[in-house]
Amino acid sequence: MRVERDQLGVVEIADDLAYGAQTARAVLNFPISRSRLRDEPEFVRALAMVKQAAARANLELGVLAPEKAQVITAITDQIIAGQHHEHFVVDLIQGGAGTSSNMNANEVIANLGLRAMGHGFGEYRYLHPNDDVNHSQSTNDVYPTAIRLALLHQARALTTTLEALAQAFRNKATEFAGITKVGRTQLQDAVPMSLGSEFAAFAATLADSVRQITAASEGLRVINLGGTAIGDGILAPEGYRARAIAALSEISGFDLTGADDLFAAGYDQGALVQFSASLKSAALRMSKIASDLRLLSSGPRAGLGEIILPPVQAGSSIMPGKVNPVIPEMVNQVAYAVVGNDVTVTMAAEAGELQLNAMEPVLLCRLLESLSLMENAANTFRTRCVDGIVADADRCRALFEGSLALATRLSLDLGYDRTSALVYRARREGIGLIPALATEPGLPRDLVANLTGNIPRKSA
Amino acid sequence: MRVERDQLGVVEIADDLAYGAQTARAVLNFPISRSRLRDEPEFVRALAMVKQAAARANLELGVLAPEKAQVITAITDQIIAGQHHEHFVVDLIQGGAGTSSNMNANEVIANLGLRAMGHGFGEYRYLHPNDDVNHSQSTNDVYPTAIRLALLHQARALTTTLEALAQAFRNKATEFAGITKVGRTQLQDAVPMSLGSEFAAFAATLADSVRQITAASEGLRVINLGGTAIGDGILAPEGYRARAIAALSEISGFDLTGADDLFAAGYDQGALVQFSASLKSAALRMSKIASDLRLLSSGPRAGLGEIILPPVQAGSSIMPGKVNPVIPEMVNQVAYAVVGNDVTVTMAAEAGELQLNAMEPVLLCRLLESLSLMENAANTFRTRCVDGIVADADRCRALFEGSLALATRLSLDLGYDRTSALVYRARREGIGLIPALATEPGLPRDLVANLTGNIPRKSA
Amino acid sequence: MRVERDQLGVVEIADDLAYGAQTARAVLNFPISRSRLRDEPEFVRALAMVKQAAARANLELGVLAPEKAQVITAITDQIIAGQHHEHFVVDLIQGGAGTSSNMNANEVIANLGLRAMGHGFGEYRYLHPNDDVNHSQSTNDVYPTAIRLALLHQARALTTTLEALAQAFRNKATEFAGITKVGRTQLQDAVPMSLGSEFAAFAATLADSVRQITAASEGLRVINLGGTAIGDGILAPEGYRARAIAALSEISGFDLTGADDLFAAGYDQGALVQFSASLKSAALRMSKIASDLRLLSSGPRAGLGEIILPPVQAGSSIMPGKVNPVIPEMVNQVAYAVVGNDVTVTMAAEAGELQLNAMEPVLLCRLLESLSLMENAANTFRTRCVDGIVADADRCRALFEGSLALATRLSLDLGYDRTSALVYRARREGIGLIPALATEPGLPRDLVANLTGNIPRKSA
Amino acid sequence: MRVERDQLGVVEIADDLAYGAQTARAVLNFPISRSRLRDEPEFVRALAMVKQAAARANLELGVLAPEKAQVITAITDQIIAGQHHEHFVVDLIQGGAGTSSNMNANEVIANLGLRAMGHGFGEYRYLHPNDDVNHSQSTNDVYPTAIRLALLHQARALTTTLEALAQAFRNKATEFAGITKVGRTQLQDAVPMSLGSEFAAFAATLADSVRQITAASEGLRVINLGGTAIGDGILAPEGYRARAIAALSEISGFDLTGADDLFAAGYDQGALVQFSASLKSAALRMSKIASDLRLLSSGPRAGLGEIILPPVQAGSSIMPGKVNPVIPEMVNQVAYAVVGNDVTVTMAAEAGELQLNAMEPVLLCRLLESLSLMENAANTFRTRCVDGIVADADRCRALFEGSLALATRLSLDLGYDRTSALVYRARREGIGLIPALATEPGLPRDLVANLTGNIPRKSA
Repeated sequence: MRVERDQLGVVEIADDLAYGAQTARAVLNFPISRSRLRDEPEFVRALAMVKQAAARANLELGVLAPEKAQVITAITDQIIAGQHHEHFVVDLIQGGAGTSSNMNANEVIANLGLRAMGHGFGEYRYLHPNDDVNHSQSTNDVYPTAIRLALLHQARALTTTLEALAQAFRNKATEFAGITKVGRTQLQDAVPMSLGSEFAAFAATLADSVRQITAASEGLRVINLGGTAIGDGILAPEGYRARAIAALSEISGFDLTGADDLFAAGYDQGALVQFSASLKSAALRMSKIASDLRLLSSGPRAGLGEIILPPVQAGSSIMPGKVNPVIPEMVNQVAYAVVGNDVTVTMAAEAGELQLNAMEPVLLCRLLESLSLMENAANTFRTRCVDGIVADADRCRALFEGSLALATRLSLDLGYDRTSALVYRARREGIGLIPALATEPGLPRDLVANLTGNIPRKSA
Repeated sequence: MRVERDQLGVVEIADDLAYGAQTARAVLNFPISRSRLRDEPEFVRALAMVKQAAARANLELGVLAPEKAQVITAITDQIIAGQHHEHFVVDLIQGGAGTSSNMNANEVIANLGLRAMGHGFGEYRYLHPNDDVNHSQSTNDVYPTAIRLALLHQARALTTTLEALAQAFRNKATEFAGITKVGRTQLQDAVPMSLGSEFAAFAATLADSVRQITAASEGLRVINLGGTAIGDGILAPEGYRARAIAALSEISGFDLTGADDLFAAGYDQGALVQFSASLKSAALRMSKIASDLRLLSSGPRAGLGEIILPPVQAGSSIMPGKVNPVIPEMVNQVAYAVVGNDVTVTMAAEAGELQLNAMEPVLLCRLLESLSLMENAANTFRTRCVDGIVADADRCRALFEGSLALATRLSLDLGYDRTSALVYRARREGIGLIPALATEPGLPRDLVANLTGNIPRKSA
Repeated sequence: MRVERDQLGVVEIADDLAYGAQTARAVLNFPISRSRLRDEPEFVRALAMVKQAAARANLELGVLAPEKAQVITAITDQIIAGQHHEHFVVDLIQGGAGTSSNMNANEVIANLGLRAMGHGFGEYRYLHPNDDVNHSQSTNDVYPTAIRLALLHQARALTTTLEALAQAFRNKATEFAGITKVGRTQLQDAVPMSLGSEFAAFAATLADSVRQITAASEGLRVINLGGTAIGDGILAPEGYRARAIAALSEISGFDLTGADDLFAAGYDQGALVQFSASLKSAALRMSKIASDLRLLSSGPRAGLGEIILPPVQAGSSIMPGKVNPVIPEMVNQVAYAVVGNDVTVTMAAEAGELQLNAMEPVLLCRLLESLSLMENAANTFRTRCVDGIVADADRCRALFEGSLALATRLSLDLGYDRTSALVYRARREGIGLIPALATEPGLPRDLVANLTGNIPRKSA
Repeated sequence: MRVERDQLGVVEIADDLAYGAQTARAVLNFPISRSRLRDEPEFVRALAMVKQAAARANLELGVLAPEKAQVITAITDQIIAGQHHEHFVVDLIQGGAGTSSNMNANEVIANLGLRAMGHGFGEYRYLHPNDDVNHSQSTNDVYPTAIRLALLHQARALTTTLEALAQAFRNKATEFAGITKVGRTQLQDAVPMSLGSEFAAFAATLADSVRQITAASEGLRVINLGGTAIGDGILAPEGYRARAIAALSEISGFDLTGADDLFAAGYDQGALVQFSASLKSAALRMSKIASDLRLLSSGPRAGLGEIILPPVQAGSSIMPGKVNPVIPEMVNQVAYAVVGNDVTVTMAAEAGELQLNAMEPVLLCRLLESLSLMENAANTFRTRCVDGIVADADRCRALFEGSLALATRLSLDLGYDRTSALVYRARREGIGLIPALATEPGLPRDLVANLTGNIPRKSA
C-alpha cells in the first residue's frame, strides 16, 4: 500500500492501482449503481482524447513542459486504443458534477505517465494530476465535452444499425410488393393495400429517425472546452480554447465547434434534451413497428396471421408448440426503458443551479444506456426477426376477399350515403360487397369490373 | 370604480366586483391557463369550508368577534351552496403557493360580508380579509387543506363512477359466461376460456382500483390546518388547531386528522403523489381494457371480431359504412393525459425549497383535471360502449374450433415434448389438433374424448 | 328542430345550428374535457384552410362543380377570418382519430354554404359534407395536416415571444455588465464573474430554444395531404395531391411539402414528438432561469439577495410585507405542465395500430396547450418580472469580497495543492484570502496585486 | 459439447453448463442489457422458492414422484442458499413474458437434479424441465409470483435503510433543537423556527415513506400462483393452488395470498404500479431533502451557510479548497433515475394485450434497479453525509437577527396593514424591525418585549 495525501488528509491505495486519492475517495463515496466508468469504454476514450487535446494546446502555448506533454500524449494514446480502462473505477452515478470522473482520468494518466517516466505512482511533483494533466481545464468543461464526444460516437453506431434495420424492412417491402391485403385504420378494415407498402412505411419512419438523430447530434458538436470553471476560461491562457478544440476535432474525428456563450454552455443541457428526444422518437417508432408485427403475426389460427415471424425459441413452459413474438416484445420493452430514461434526462436537465448543472452524471449514464439498449435491440430485431419474416399471401388474400374494403372505391360511383347503406346491409347479412351489389337494383353495368380493376394503387 | 390600497399602492376595481386589491393584481399577474378558480367549484367550496371552520374556532377561542364570525359563516354557507362563485377569478396556475387563491377567498368573503353588514365593498375596517377572514390562518395551511378537501370529494365521485363501470363489466361477464373462446397470451392462441371470464377480469381490476384510490385518499385526510405559515402555528391561539380541524370535519363530512409533523406537512406532497399514482393506475387499467375491446372487436371481417361494440357514430369521412371503436379510443387518450399529469405532479412535488412547496397550484390543477377526465371517460365508457357490447358467439366458437388451443390439456397425457411435435405438425399441415391426433399412431383410445370433455374449467 | 339522417338513424338538431348529424353525435359521445374546437381558433382556421385548398384542387381537376367550389371558398374565407367558430363544438379529446373534427368542419361548411346558395340547412343534395366538402379527402390526411398547420402558426407566435424574452435578458445583461459577483457552481462559491454574464447566458439559452423550435417546426411542414384514407390516395384524382399542397401553401403562407412515404405519414407522429421535445427543452430552460432568479433574489436579508425582482403583489396572507417571486414560480409550474404534456405526447405517439394512429386528438390538444401556456408564461415573465429586475450591486460586491473566489486565480502562481491548503486555513480561521496570504511566508511580492488585477475576465 | 433437442431443432451446449436448449436460445436472442438473472440474486432465489413450493404441492397431491420432489427440493435449497447462480444467464430484458427466465430455472434445476441423481446433463427422461420441474405451473404464474417475492424482499431491505436514515435526521433534530434560525417560504425570509424542527421534518417525511412503501408492499403479497397459463389453472390438479401458496408462504417467510380473479391477476400490473409510486414518492422526498441540504450549506461565504456538510472529497479539479455537496447531488440523481423508471413501469403496465402482459421483464428489471439505487443512496446519504452534518449556530443566529422575520408576530398587535407598511419601510431603509419600531410613533410600550419574548414556539 502507498499513501496519498489530499486536502482532506491521507488515503491508502494498493501499490498497483494507478488511480490516486480523489478516485479512491470517490469509490467510497459512490457505491450506487452497477456501472463504473470502465463499463463505458467510449466515455473513457473520450476523456483521454480531451486530455490529449488539452496537452497539445498547452504545449503549443508553452504552459506545459514538452516532456510532460509527450508522456500525457503517449498514455492517452494507449487509453484511446483501449488499454488501462481497468483503472477507471468510479461509479457512473456520482455527485460532484463529474469531478470524480475527471480526477480519475487525471490521476490515472499522471500515475501511468510517472511510471513511463521512471517514477513511482504518487510522485506527483514530476507530473501532477491537477497542475499538469488538468492544466487549463476544469471538470466543468472537460466532462461535458467528453460526454458529447462519447454520445457522438455512439450515435453514429446507432444510426448505422438503424439504417441496416430500415434496409431489412425495405428488402421485405420489395419481397411483399405483390401481396394484396386489407389496410386497417383503428383496427377496422379500411381499404386495400399491399403488404409491401406496409413494410416500406416501417423503413421510411426508421430512415427518418436516422435523419432526426443525425440532426440532433449536430447540437452535440458544440462544446464548452476552454470555458474552464464557469465559462470565463479562468486559468486557460490566451489562444488555448481555439487550439484545444482544433486538436480535439483532429483526435476525435468529429468536427467540433466552440459554444458562443460559454457561461450558458457550462450548465445548459438543451442539446442533450433534444438528442434524447431523437432517441426516444426512434424508440417509439421501433416500438410501433414491433407492435404491428405482433399484431400481423397473431394467431396462428385465431388471429390476423398475415405474416409469420421466424420462431427463435419455444414459446411456453406449459403450452407445447406455442411460438411467441419474443423479439418484438423485447423491442417494446427497450422502448419503454428509453422513454423512462428520457424523463430522467428531462429532470436532470431542469435541475442544477446557477453556473453549473451538477446532475450531468445521470444524464451521461442514461443516455449511454439508451444508445446501447437501442443498438442491441435494433441489431437483434433485424437479424433474429425482420430478416426472417415470411408472408402468408393466401391468408392476406382471403381476408381481403372476405372484407368490405372496396366500399370506399365504390363510393366514387355511388356516393357516400348510398354506399354506406349498402355496406350496412352487407354487414347485417354477412355477405360480401360484390354479392350485395348483385342484389341491388339500378346499378351501372360495369360497376363491379371498375371496382376490382385497379387495386391496390399508388398515390399520385 | 372603487379604489383599494395595498402595500404596493393603489388598485382600481369595478364597483360590483366583490374581490379586492390582491385578487385584482393576481388576475393581471397570471393570464396563463384557461382555468380559473370558478371553473373548479369543488375547490371554491373547499376554500369556503376552511374559512368557516377557522371562523368557528376563532369564535370559540374569543379571538374573533361574534358578529364577524356570524357573517363569515353566512357568506361561506352561501358559497358552499354554490353561490358567488363568479367572484373567484384567479387563474388556477399561479405563483405564490396559492396566496392569490386564499386572498381571493378572503377578499370575496370580506366584501360580501361587508355588504351583508350594511357596509360598502372595500371598507375593511369593519371586516378585514387578512385580520378577520384569514385570522389564525396562513395560505400555507389553508390552501393545502382545501386542496385535500376538493380531491377527497372528487375522488369519491370517481370511485362511484368506476364502481358502476365495474358493475357494467360484471353484467356482461354474466351474460357472456357460456361463450367459449380462445384465450390468448402474447397475441398468440393459448388455451380455452369463456368470454365471461375475460369481462369478469376487467371488472376485477377496476374494483381493485376503487380500492387503491380509496386507500390513497386516506392520506388526504391528514391536513396541516393550524400550522399557519411554516408549521409552528404562529398567530394561531392555543387550542385553535384541534377546534378548527373538528369544525372542518363536521362541515365537510370527511373525517380529517391533523398531521404529526406540521413543518413537514407544510411542504410535503407525498400524499398527493401517492394519490396521483392511484388515479394513474386506474387510468392504465381503463386503457388496457379499452385496447382489449378494440382488439376483440377488430374487423368486421379481417379482424378478431369476437365482440361487437355499439356503433355510436359514423366512422369515417371517406370510408362509407365504417364503424370505429371511438369510445375506447377516447379512453386510451384520457389515460395518456392522466399519465402526463402524474409526471407533472411528480416534478412539482420534487420542487419547492425549505419550508414550503410553491408549486402546489399546478398540483391542484392537474389532479383535478385527471379526476374530471377520468370520471367523464368512465361514465361515457359505460353508457356509450360497455353496456351495449354484444358477443359474436358463433365467431368465438369458430375461432376456437379452428385453433390448437387444446394442446396444453393434451400434454397432460402425452407430455410436453410429444405434444409440441404434434402441434408443429398440425401447424405445418394446416390441420386441427383432433385430425392430427387421428393420424398419430399408438395413442390411447379415450384421449380425444378426455380432451374435449371439460372445457373451459375454473381454477381450483 | 330539423331532422338529419345518417347511417345510424335519425338525429334532431336545432334549426339554427350549422353542424349536422355526425357532429351532433360526437357532442353526445365526447363530453370529456373542457375544451372544444372553437377554443382553439387556430385549429379551426387550419381546418378551413385545408378545405379551401382541397376545393381549389378539385375545381382545377374538374371533380368539383365551380359553384360548389366557389361557395366552399367563400365560407372557408369567412372561417379563416374568424367567423362561424361558434359552430365548432366537438370536444378536443375525441375518439375516431379526428373524424368528428373533420366532419364538424365538413358539416358546418356544407350548411353555411347551403344557406349562402339559398338552400336550407341539411339539404345536402345541393352541397354534401362528404361527397363535396370532403371530396378527395379523408380525415386521415385532413386532420394531421390541419394539426401541423395550427402548430406551425402557434410555434411562430411562441418563438417571437421567446425572442422578446431573450432580448429582455440581453438588455439586463448590458445593464449589469459592470457588476462583479461570485460565480457559483454546485451552490458553492466558485470564481468571480459579472452579473451581466449571468443574464447574457439566460438570453443565450432562450435564443437557442428559438433555434431548436424553429428547426423542429421544419418537420411539421411535411404533410400527408393527398394520401387520403391510408396513404394510397384512394378517391383522390391524379394530380390532386400536388395541387392541393400548393394551394394550401399559398393559403396558409407556410411552405409545405408532401411526405415521401404517405403510408408512413398517415400514422407516424415522429415530427410531433420532436416538436414537443423542442417545446419541452425551452420550458426546461425557462424553468432553470426562473429557479436561478428565485435563488439570486432570495432574502431579503437571510438569502443571496444579489438581485431584486419587481414586486407585483403582496406575498402572504399572514406575513406582512413579504414579497414573493410569484412570476418565476408560475414559470416553473408551466414547465412542469409542459413536461407532463410531453409524456402524454410520447405515449400517444407510441400507440396506434397499423395504418393509423387514432390517438392524434390528445396530441393536438396537449401540444396546443403547451404552446399557449408557454407563450403566456414567457410574456408575463418578461413584462412582469424580467424587465423590472434591479441589481443590488453593493450586495454583489460585498459577497464577492467576503468570499475566497480568488483562490483559483491564485493557484496559477502557487499550484493546486498549496492553494488548497491556504483556502482551508482561511475557511478554518474565518478570514479572507488576502489576509491569509499576508500571513503566509515566502510568497512573491506582487502576488496580491496580480490576483486582484484582472477580474472578471472574458474567455479567449 | 452436448447436444440438446427442442421443438426448433438442435442446440449445442458446453458439457459443464447446467442450463439447456431453451436457455441457450434465449442467450442468443437477448443480448440486450448488461444485467443477467444472476445479477439479481434475490430474483433467482425467488424463482427457486416457487419451484420448491410447487414441487411440495405436487408431491402432496401425488402428481410428482417422491424422488423427483426430493431432488428438486434439494437443488432449490442450494439455490436459495446462494449456490449455482452462475447458471442463471438470461438477460433480464427479454421477450416472452419471462418464459426464458422460468425455463432457465427449470433447466438448471433439472440438470443439477439429474447430476445429483447420478444421470448426465440433458437426460430429461429422468427429470424433465417442463413435465417435472414445471409441473402444474406456467411461466405466467411462476414469473409474476417470483417478481413479487423478490420485490417484497428488497422492499424490506429498503425500508430498513430508510428508517435508519430517518433516525439519523431525528438525531440531528435533537442536536439542533436549540438553534434559532429564519424559516423560509418561497426562498424568502418568513418566520423564526429552530434548525431542529427543520431536521425533524425531514425525518417525518422519510418515516411516512416507510409507511407508504410498506402499505404498497401489501399488494405484492397477492399472487396468481396456481392460475397457470391464463388464470383457469389448466394442468394444475384440484387442491394444488392452496397447497402451493401455503408452501411458498412458509418457504419465503412472507404471508402470501391468492388473487381473487386469476384471469385478471395473470396480466394486471396495478400492484406494481402502486409499488413503484411508493418508491418514487420516497425518492422525491430524499431529493427534496438533498436539495435543502445543498441550499442550507451553500457558501461557504456567499451562501446561506447555516449548516456544514462533512467534506468527503476534494470538490474541484481546478478550484483549490472547494468542497461540494457531492452526496446530496448523488441523491438527487438517483431520484431522477427512479422517476424515469416509474415512467417505464407505467408504460409497460399499460401495454400487454388480452390474457397476458408480455412486458413484465422490464417491470422487474427497473423496479429492482430502483430498489437497489435507493437503498445504496440512502445508506450513503446517512453514513457519508447526514451523520456528520454540523450546524453553524452563529450564522443561523446572525441571519435571524438581521432579518425581519418577527413581522408576522408583530401583526398580532399592529394588524396586517400597518405591519406591512412598517416592514416596507425597514426594507427600504435597510434597517431591522426593532430599530424601525423605535422610530414609529404611538406604539405600546411593551411591544418589543412581547415580540422577542417567545421565539420560536411549537404548534398547539
